[in-house]
Amino acid sequence: MKIGLDIMGGDFAPNATVLGAIEASKVLSNDQQLVLIGNKELALPIFEQAGIDASLFEFIHTTETISMGEHPTKAITHKPNASISLGFQLLKEGGIDSFASAGNTGAMLVGSMFSVKTVPGVIRPAIATNVPRLTSGFSVLLDVGANADCKPDNLLQFGILGSLYAQHVYSSENPAVALLNIGEEEEKGNMLTNAAHSLMKEAQAFNFIGNIEGRDLFEDHIDVIVCDGFTGNVVLKLAESFYSLTVKKGFKDPFFDRFNYEQYGGSPILGVNAPVIIGHGISNPEAIKNMILLSRDMIESKFVDKVKAAFK
Amino acid sequence: MKIGLDIMGGDFAPNATVLGAIEASKVLSNDQQLVLIGNKELALPIFEQAGIDASLFEFIHTTETISMGEHPTKAITHKPNASISLGFQLLKEGGIDSFASAGNTGAMLVGSMFSVKTVPGVIRPAIATNVPRLTSGFSVLLDVGANADCKPDNLLQFGILGSLYAQHVYSSENPAVALLNIGEEEEKGNMLTNAAHSLMKEAQAFNFIGNIEGRDLFEDHIDVIVCDGFTGNVVLKLAESFYSLTVKKGFKDPFFDRFNYEQYGGSPILGVNAPVIIGHGISNPEAIKNMILLSRDMIESKFVDKVKAAFK
Repeated sequence: MKIGLDIMGGDFAPNATVLGAIEASKVLSNDQQLVLIGNKELALPIFEQAGIDASLFEFIHTTETISMGEHPTKAITHKPNASISLGFQLLKEGGIDSFASAGNTGAMLVGSMFSVKTVPGVIRPAIATNVPRLTSGFSVLLDVGANADCKPDNLLQFGILGSLYAQHVYSSENPAVALLNIGEEEEKGNMLTNAAHSLMKEAQAFNFIGNIEGRDLFEDHIDVIVCDGFTGNVVLKLAESFYSLTVKKGFKDPFFDRFNYEQYGGSPILGVNAPVIIGHGISNPEAIKNMILLSRDMIESKFVDKVKAAFK
Repeated sequence: MKIGLDIMGGDFAPNATVLGAIEASKVLSNDQQLVLIGNKELALPIFEQAGIDASLFEFIHTTETISMGEHPTKAITHKPNASISLGFQLLKEGGIDSFASAGNTGAMLVGSMFSVKTVPGVIRPAIATNVPRLTSGFSVLLDVGANADCKPDNLLQFGILGSLYAQHVYSSENPAVALLNIGEEEEKGNMLTNAAHSLMKEAQAFNFIGNIEGRDLFEDHIDVIVCDGFTGNVVLKLAESFYSLTVKKGFKDPFFDRFNYEQYGGSPILGVNAPVIIGHGISNPEAIKNMILLSRDMIESKFVDKVKAAFK
C-alpha cells in the first residue's frame, strides 16, 4: 500500500508534515509505504536534523504549491504541478492508494472530484469529522462543509456514507445514525430536515435512530450525525471554539481533551473513488501522523469498495 | 405600567413564578405593577409562606393551563381561558403592557401573532436570545427558533430588529450586526446567507460588519448575530450543553457563568406589537425575576414603537 502525503500542506509545513511522516513511519509496517509529495529540497534538512534516513521514503518532488487563500478550482486547474494537483494525479493513476493534505480544503475537495471523481450513485461527497462522545469514543459528523446547500436526498446519502465509515473504519457495529434537527419529534425541523427524516426512517441501508438536537451532540449512543454542510460547519467551529476556551482557561478534562483534532488527524471526504483526507490547517506532527494512520485504516478497511457496493 | 406574568408557565410553576414575582416586586417602582395570570388559589399559599401580602399584587385568576407538550395553535384556539391565552387577550386589550411566560414556547409565539399581531412591514417575528461575550456583556442572537426556514429578506429584517433591541433595550450604541456564516468572505455561505449578505451590506438601518463563523460567536466586538431559526436553535442548544458540561465538571469561570440563562431571564419575540418574552422551561425564581425586569426594560425603552417606526 502507498500512502500519499502532501508535505507542503498546512500552516506549519513542511516541518510539521515531515516530522509527522517520520513519526508515522515508525508504526507503519514494511508494506505500508509513505509517498511524500512536495519540495524535497526543503524536506531533506528536516530529515537530517531528525537523524532519519530520507532514502527510506519515496518522494515526488515539486516546487509548486497551492496556498490556503487560493481559489480552489482555479488553483487546481492552473497549477498542475502543485503538490495537491500531483497528489490527485498520482491517486487517479494508482501511484498512491490514498491522499492526505492539511492544505487548502477547497482544493482537496475540488481535486478529488476532478480526479478520482465521485462514486457512481453518490450525488455529492461529504466531509466527515469526529465528535467526541461524553464517555468514550467518537461519533462521525457529516457534512461539515462540502455542501452548503443540501437536498433531502443528500442527507439520506450522508447517512449511508457515515454509517459505512463508522462501521468499517471505526469498527462500530450497526452504527446508530441520527439527524441533527431542532426537535426530537418526527414532524419538527425545517423543510430540509423534515423531508430528510421521512426518507431516513424508511432507509434500509442504516440504523436510523431519529432526530437529535444541538444539546445531544455528544451523547454516547450516537455513532453518526447527519446534517447539511452549513449547519455542520457552524457546529464544528463552535465546538472547536469551546474547546479552545477550555484549554485557554486551563480546564483539564478527559472529555474536553478529546476535542483535540490532533488525535484523529483529519477529515475524510466520503463518497469519492479513493481515500482522501483533509487535515486541519494548524496540524502539528502528531496530527499529521494520525492523518497518515487514518489513511492506512481507510485503505485497509476497503472503505471505498464498501461505498461502491452500497451505491451500485 | 402593567407587567403581565403567566404564573403557570415553566417546569417549576407556580412556585418559581410566584417567588420570582415577589423578588421582582422588591426592585420595581410603585408605578410598575405586576399582573399575575393563573391559578390564584395555588399562588396564595406561596405568598403566605414567603410572608408577603398577596393583595399588593393584581391577579387574573384561571384554572386552565397550556402544558409544555401541547400543540401550540390547537391549544391557543381551544383553551381561551388558559393562562397564556388570557395573557394575550389582556395584552391585546391594553390591560397589560407586556406579557411573559416560561411555558409552551410555541403557544407564546402563536399567541403573540394571533393577538397583538406582527408589526406591519415585518414579514416574520424572531425569537432573540443573549449570548455571552468573552470579556463582558452579551450579544443578541436571532432567530433561535421561530422560523426554521428563512428567506434573505427575513435575515435582513432580523438585522433591523436585533439592532433596535441591542440599541434601545441594552443601550448599545450603533450596534455591530454580524451574519452567521461559514466563511468570512462575502461570497461564502449557502444560498440563503449569500443572498442575505448582499442585502445586509446595502442596509442603511443598521451597522453591518459582515460574516462571522461559528468560532466567532463570543467575540467582544459583536452586538447582534443574525441567522435562520434552524441554525440559531442548533447553536443555542449546543452552547447550552457546553455550559451544562462545564457546570457538571465543576469548572468555574466568569465567562462560562454568563451562559446561565437565569441572568437574562428570557427570550423576547421581536417584531410583534407588544413586548412578549418567553422564559426557559426550567426557570427558577431568579430567572423569572429577570424576565420581569426585561419586560419592564422593553416597555420603558418603548422598543415596540421603535420597531413600528423602523418598518413604517
